[in-house]
Amino acid sequence: MPFEPDFIARLKHIFEEKISFNKVIGLRIDTLEPDGVTAHIDMRPELVGHYAHQRLHGGVISATLDAMGGLAVMAAIGARHPDEPPETRLLRFGKLGTIDLRVDYLRPATGPRFIARAEVMRLGSRVASTRMEFFDAEQRLLSTGAAAYIVS
Amino acid sequence: MPFEPDFIARLKHIFEEKISFNKVIGLRIDTLEPDGVTAHIDMRPELVGHYAHQRLHGGVISATLDAMGGLAVMAAIGARHPDEPPETRLLRFGKLGTIDLRVDYLRPATGPRFIARAEVMRLGSRVASTRMEFFDAEQRLLSTGAAAYIVS
Amino acid sequence: MPFEPDFIARLKHIFEEKISFNKVIGLRIDTLEPDGVTAHIDMRPELVGHYAHQRLHGGVISATLDAMGGLAVMAAIGARHPDEPPETRLLRFGKLGTIDLRVDYLRPATGPRFIARAEVMRLGSRVASTRMEFFDAEQRLLSTGAAAYIVS
Amino acid sequence: MPFEPDFIARLKHIFEEKISFNKVIGLRIDTLEPDGVTAHIDMRPELVGHYAHQRLHGGVISATLDAMGGLAVMAAIGARHPDEPPETRLLRFGKLGTIDLRVDYLRPATGPRFIARAEVMRLGSRVASTRMEFFDAEQRLLSTGAAAYIVS
Repeated sequence: MPFEPDFIARLKHIFEEKISFNKVIGLRIDTLEPDGVTAHIDMRPELVGHYAHQRLHGGVISATLDAMGGLAVMAAIGARHPDEPPETRLLRFGKLGTIDLRVDYLRPATGPRFIARAEVMRLGSRVASTRMEFFDAEQRLLSTGAAAYIVS
Repeated sequence: MPFEPDFIARLKHIFEEKISFNKVIGLRIDTLEPDGVTAHIDMRPELVGHYAHQRLHGGVISATLDAMGGLAVMAAIGARHPDEPPETRLLRFGKLGTIDLRVDYLRPATGPRFIARAEVMRLGSRVASTRMEFFDAEQRLLSTGAAAYIVS
Repeated sequence: MPFEPDFIARLKHIFEEKISFNKVIGLRIDTLEPDGVTAHIDMRPELVGHYAHQRLHGGVISATLDAMGGLAVMAAIGARHPDEPPETRLLRFGKLGTIDLRVDYLRPATGPRFIARAEVMRLGSRVASTRMEFFDAEQRLLSTGAAAYIVS
Repeated sequence: MPFEPDFIARLKHIFEEKISFNKVIGLRIDTLEPDGVTAHIDMRPELVGHYAHQRLHGGVISATLDAMGGLAVMAAIGARHPDEPPETRLLRFGKLGTIDLRVDYLRPATGPRFIARAEVMRLGSRVASTRMEFFDAEQRLLSTGAAAYIVS
């Protein structure tokens, strides 16, 4: 069952606008479903890490994967409480915290646009575990990640 | 043996100015020694992750710890080649790549300033391993990290 | 292109018999292909971690996932050198070393048999990255892992 | 304040005898204090991973570091509830679960004996985070680790 437009619009607003550092990165949600989320970022000079090769900074990738894992958990929590009004469900976002994060950097990140994807491997009552992936515009896998979140 | 001022000035310039995303974060090197490096960042509205509590975004922490681990490796490499002129040693910075990164988020990150520290656990001919720590202005440990870098 | 039976038989012998601790765990290879490997272990009293619940020890899982990631890398390397005789290719196994490993424990591990799977995300000239999964006999995902290996 | 002998004896019995796989590894507790724990294992042919070099299997290290992190959490929990009788405190051991584990392999593990150490970086009401280290008999650091545990 897809999310109602109001829930999506509110979650998008929080994620893209109210979480300031997501805005600095330029994270934009593309799909938001109970079993996974995707987003993209466009390359900009401020996001460069390796100036000689114009590569994306690894920190942009780690920040994106952490944010995306959290968003996937939020979507899974939203789907678990379909009877709550959107604003009640979204209050749960404020209680989410990253326990830890791992990022594997597979290939240099260059190009005009990057796509990030996250899915929840397990949503428990206290801890959620996620897997994340980071692609370039040609769908080449550049990085993978895994994270744990506290959810209560 | 401490580094010569010219090496430090050049490495500081690369790290703080030429790596654009480090500048976005506001990373400033405080100490740069063969066996460890420290830096700080000042809180700014752009770096916020949790708008209700004005907490630093976890991605700022992961980006900082990744950058600091790399800087520690660069310092260790610099110390291994004391006879090379600074510009030759600094060329090695461009060859450094993060293999993977882990960050443990221990406590919420609030306050006016944060301090990051990194040290190399092992510098091999191909791979270097580091440990990193992230503190608030009162020296409370907020996050820890570990990373592996390719160094050739 | 599948591997020749001689290569498979020799690699199986090394993995299951000569690596003593794999034998203690009881790791048995089921499939060995250039793009992924699977194996299983049968539950035995020696492998228990949580005596009250008869759960598999987390260390059996981490040891298995580390070994399986290495096996997947070995298969990928074997496929990259199809013209070498099996014994030459297998010498490369001795040069493989784990750089680091992450394991996520999603669900308690109980039951009579467990299945582990590994695939290589990227095989470089110096470093290989893998993802691993650990299932129970009903194909429920119990744990996931990621590891980096030095391959030269 | 050190632990009472009865608490230590009971915890040692559970850890070394009742957790079967710890016994297979040969894990023996050396020190057990509220702020850290140490143990050792003796090299045996069954624990070998790299037969040509007689190196300890990486899985012995990951299993040991996971077990030691859990023991450190158990010690920290024990210290938090000094008024409970030992058997009550020890019941909490059964509720401990590893969320995830990272191990960095720094140097090949050879020699007659290995020492492992773990400390709790933060003990929360729901999650505990630990750091672990693995040494050879000459106190050379061979591996480091980090883990998160669910503690309720």
